[in-house]
Amino acid sequence: MRQTRGVRKIHVIGIGAGDPDQLTLQAVRTLQSTDVFFLLDKGEVKHDLAQLRRSLLDAHLAEGSYRVVEARDPERDRKAGGAAYSPAVGDWRSARAGIYERLIAEELDECGTGAFLVWGDPALYDSTLGILQEVLERGAVEFEYDVVPGVSSVSSLVARHRTGLNRVGRPVQITTGRRLAEGFPEGVDDVVVMLDAQQAFRRYAGEDIDIYWGAYIGTPDEILVAGPIAEAGPRIERLRAEARERKGWIMDTYLLRRSPGTG
Amino acid sequence: MRQTRGVRKIHVIGIGAGDPDQLTLQAVRTLQSTDVFFLLDKGEVKHDLAQLRRSLLDAHLAEGSYRVVEARDPERDRKAGGAAYSPAVGDWRSARAGIYERLIAEELDECGTGAFLVWGDPALYDSTLGILQEVLERGAVEFEYDVVPGVSSVSSLVARHRTGLNRVGRPVQITTGRRLAEGFPEGVDDVVVMLDAQQAFRRYAGEDIDIYWGAYIGTPDEILVAGPIAEAGPRIERLRAEARERKGWIMDTYLLRRSPGTG
Repeated sequence: MRQTRGVRKIHVIGIGAGDPDQLTLQAVRTLQSTDVFFLLDKGEVKHDLAQLRRSLLDAHLAEGSYRVVEARDPERDRKAGGAAYSPAVGDWRSARAGIYERLIAEELDECGTGAFLVWGDPALYDSTLGILQEVLERGAVEFEYDVVPGVSSVSSLVARHRTGLNRVGRPVQITTGRRLAEGFPEGVDDVVVMLDAQQAFRRYAGEDIDIYWGAYIGTPDEILVAGPIAEAGPRIERLRAEARERKGWIMDTYLLRRSPGTG
Repeated sequence: MRQTRGVRKIHVIGIGAGDPDQLTLQAVRTLQSTDVFFLLDKGEVKHDLAQLRRSLLDAHLAEGSYRVVEARDPERDRKAGGAAYSPAVGDWRSARAGIYERLIAEELDECGTGAFLVWGDPALYDSTLGILQEVLERGAVEFEYDVVPGVSSVSSLVARHRTGLNRVGRPVQITTGRRLAEGFPEGVDDVVVMLDAQQAFRRYAGEDIDIYWGAYIGTPDEILVAGPIAEAGPRIERLRAEARERKGWIMDTYLLRRSPGTG
């Protein structure tokens, strides 16, 4: 007969796009009911972000009321290039699943509550939910989990530009720089691009498309540029290179808005 | 010579998808710096929502520290059907612009601060930003405005279903029920559908597509259903009809997730 035991609980908490005030009241309450925070560090280049997460905890929690466990997040193998994207991501997710599994099994009591803090909203281009599902499927550790939605970097971007994501009655697509480099998505004129290290918008400088770009949105380093790609593009390239050089990392995203019927 | 005067200030505040705890700290602070709240009422059918907004204000603001101005939001003319969507929306926006203009000019001091509260995130299928821009272009009243992003109903939906919006490295499209009724969007397998009064998902019951549906998300009336459309669809239709009958209105949204390569 199986004994009744406590069940580990995991919260995946969206903490907004960078402004500490973008935390929701629900996120603050969830932080306050968490015993252990798992902070995964992607290395020195994103040290500022790790610091920002730490200061969020300091701001909302009493000293000594919680524990932080840091772990090294394995780097994704990007060497293989475009075609190998999915397999490389697969290996990386599997390596991460092993780390998450150990964190949950070893650092959390059987009735303890842990949390992963995710920038923006956990639903957009974040792997935490997929990894937790993978850990559960491995079957080595049991836990329950829930998701606290956050203000996405996409919502923050357009709020700072004081525009909407979609035009009246029309669709909007959210995609990656890699996909935009392959062609402008079909059937839409409003496209949000994330994870674009190659500045794929440059390919569209000859078209009638406006870009609304932002980096480090909601932080003191925020940079915003908007205008036709032909004019704003070179400025974005310059500002982006300068900021990246100065800070050692960059987080940026943009909306492309094409005149309907010119695609 | 023009005199220096105060400038009216307007906040457009995203207040989350229905759970009062989804307000961000930034939204709470912005509420607290607002003199006059403009609450536009779409009529009795959405009375619950008007009440919910009022209770948000009660929860975060001291009695007597703010003023509420209510106005009747003109109904959109939906009689004309599909083809006339844009013109009808145009007339409606113009009628609303007239109302917003009067509210700002007549109810706000020249250095006063007003706010419009928007469910979810003001960037997604909400007309407030477009209307304010139209009011400014008319030139009869001057003001500055900013946007406080909120947790969208889209983020809330998938958080409750504990899934992401996109799959790894793949795009997601956000569109309307009207557009989905015309065909499944090209180039994507993950589609979020909003403003769907006709339950356009029924058209795809014969395809290998999962639906993640939710109504009144984040409120005590929340209903969630997920599964293949063929199985979940009829259940959603029944629950939706019952809830709509019982409450007199419904706010729902869903994600369609198609097996890649079956489109």
